[in-house]
Amino acid sequence: MQLISTIAALRERLKQEHSIAFIPTMGNLHEGHLNLMRQGRQHGKCVVASIFVNPLQFGPSEDFEQYPRTLEADCEKLADIVDVVFAPAVNEMYPVRQSVFVEPPPIADEWCGAARPGHFRGMATVVLKLLNIVQPQVALFGKKDYQQLHIIREMVAQLNLPVVIVGGETVRAADGLALSSRNQYLNTVEREEATFLHQTLRDISAKVLGGARDFMALQHDAVTMLSKRGWMVDYVAICNQSDLLPADAQQRDWVVIAAAKLGRTRLLDNVEIGLDA
Amino acid sequence: MQLISTIAALRERLKQEHSIAFIPTMGNLHEGHLNLMRQGRQHGKCVVASIFVNPLQFGPSEDFEQYPRTLEADCEKLADIVDVVFAPAVNEMYPVRQSVFVEPPPIADEWCGAARPGHFRGMATVVLKLLNIVQPQVALFGKKDYQQLHIIREMVAQLNLPVVIVGGETVRAADGLALSSRNQYLNTVEREEATFLHQTLRDISAKVLGGARDFMALQHDAVTMLSKRGWMVDYVAICNQSDLLPADAQQRDWVVIAAAKLGRTRLLDNVEIGLDA
Repeated sequence: MQLISTIAALRERLKQEHSIAFIPTMGNLHEGHLNLMRQGRQHGKCVVASIFVNPLQFGPSEDFEQYPRTLEADCEKLADIVDVVFAPAVNEMYPVRQSVFVEPPPIADEWCGAARPGHFRGMATVVLKLLNIVQPQVALFGKKDYQQLHIIREMVAQLNLPVVIVGGETVRAADGLALSSRNQYLNTVEREEATFLHQTLRDISAKVLGGARDFMALQHDAVTMLSKRGWMVDYVAICNQSDLLPADAQQRDWVVIAAAKLGRTRLLDNVEIGLDA
Repeated sequence: MQLISTIAALRERLKQEHSIAFIPTMGNLHEGHLNLMRQGRQHGKCVVASIFVNPLQFGPSEDFEQYPRTLEADCEKLADIVDVVFAPAVNEMYPVRQSVFVEPPPIADEWCGAARPGHFRGMATVVLKLLNIVQPQVALFGKKDYQQLHIIREMVAQLNLPVVIVGGETVRAADGLALSSRNQYLNTVEREEATFLHQTLRDISAKVLGGARDFMALQHDAVTMLSKRGWMVDYVAICNQSDLLPADAQQRDWVVIAAAKLGRTRLLDNVEIGLDA
């Protein structure tokens, strides 16, 4: 595994590669990331991971400064899994103040986008930059960030990017909590409670599979229950997988998505509901 | 020369090419375009032109419908000059309603951008799509559209696009008028008057080279004179070549840019001023 920190050196290293699988991350790697990297091996002869905490996708009052940076430990984990780790400094990615952006589709203003204005614009912009730098044939993203994956797919399709996007399944702790770098912000009590988010989404999924169709009531009950237990809920929503708009009875593939804060920690989760599965 | 109209067929045709020079156009080709294509031959083994009148860069009251479409004649002109002409239909480029865009830098709101809101956003978006489809090593754009070229350079740099941008010199009629597809909208009287725009910019350039530094007065006098002759002037501005902001006495490379309407025809022109040239 080779660690590269400049764009020029990375391009030089990759210029003879014609089968690249790319996994962009913000580092602080857990089994969810590593799983994605192993999956990458099935899609490319050369597996490239990036580690870059992207300032553009954090709001002014968010956790950009405190976001865990663990490059050395990350590289150890990746030693036998990827071929190249690209870990640029902020001024390598943004040598001048960025003033050209990807304007993401309107769905970027909903759900997490409503809670984090500008987040998806910053995310889409850095992902496009990284795709242009690495020029992979395949890029992999975790399904845990479901809306992010959706927006990336829209960007790739509408901007005709020459890359195939693959979504990786969410990896969970034994109690069901979706793995996330932000889980380490949780204290012991919060960590125990955290599993309840996933349980809530599974309950909704089970009810829908059992025939429940009053989506507003299901969402409302979930928000009420979570709030009573001390969560600050951004949203719990049953959506179409295809467009992330509120679920439409004509469609067959739905997903329950949610974001909620436990103390200062914002957690995301989702459960897909395939009626034909 | 091969005429291709679908993205899939174009990608198939180009997949073995590793030295592509690309010239995007809106067709109705004149010597300015052809000159750019010949220049392309010096930059790539395979020269690809695109012909696409991009609805996204026209305002609702602009000339999208009447813009001259002359594909057959264009292809005849290109027969011995380029290897591939890509001429997609609108629904090939926009199979769904476009909702992902390039957000261009703030300079896109000035000059032509002030007169044509959204123009550069639409232009940058289609150029990015075309670059992603063709994947050229070099792309060429005429300097006649000076602000467009500037915005494309900014986009390429800030989004890390793997392409070199080359600007081609403006080709002019014998009387100095910059060649443009829109010149054919001019009636005989307007055509005769049209040369005055270029003369005005050359006069300003000569005065600046002669030591004049009251840029505001030079601009104001030019606008007054053009207006008296019946032009509707959008702007005449002396700018830095580097950022297209109003000329800064510390810089050495300036450019006079202008846009003005004669009857219903909007004409652009510019003259570079190199103090060290």
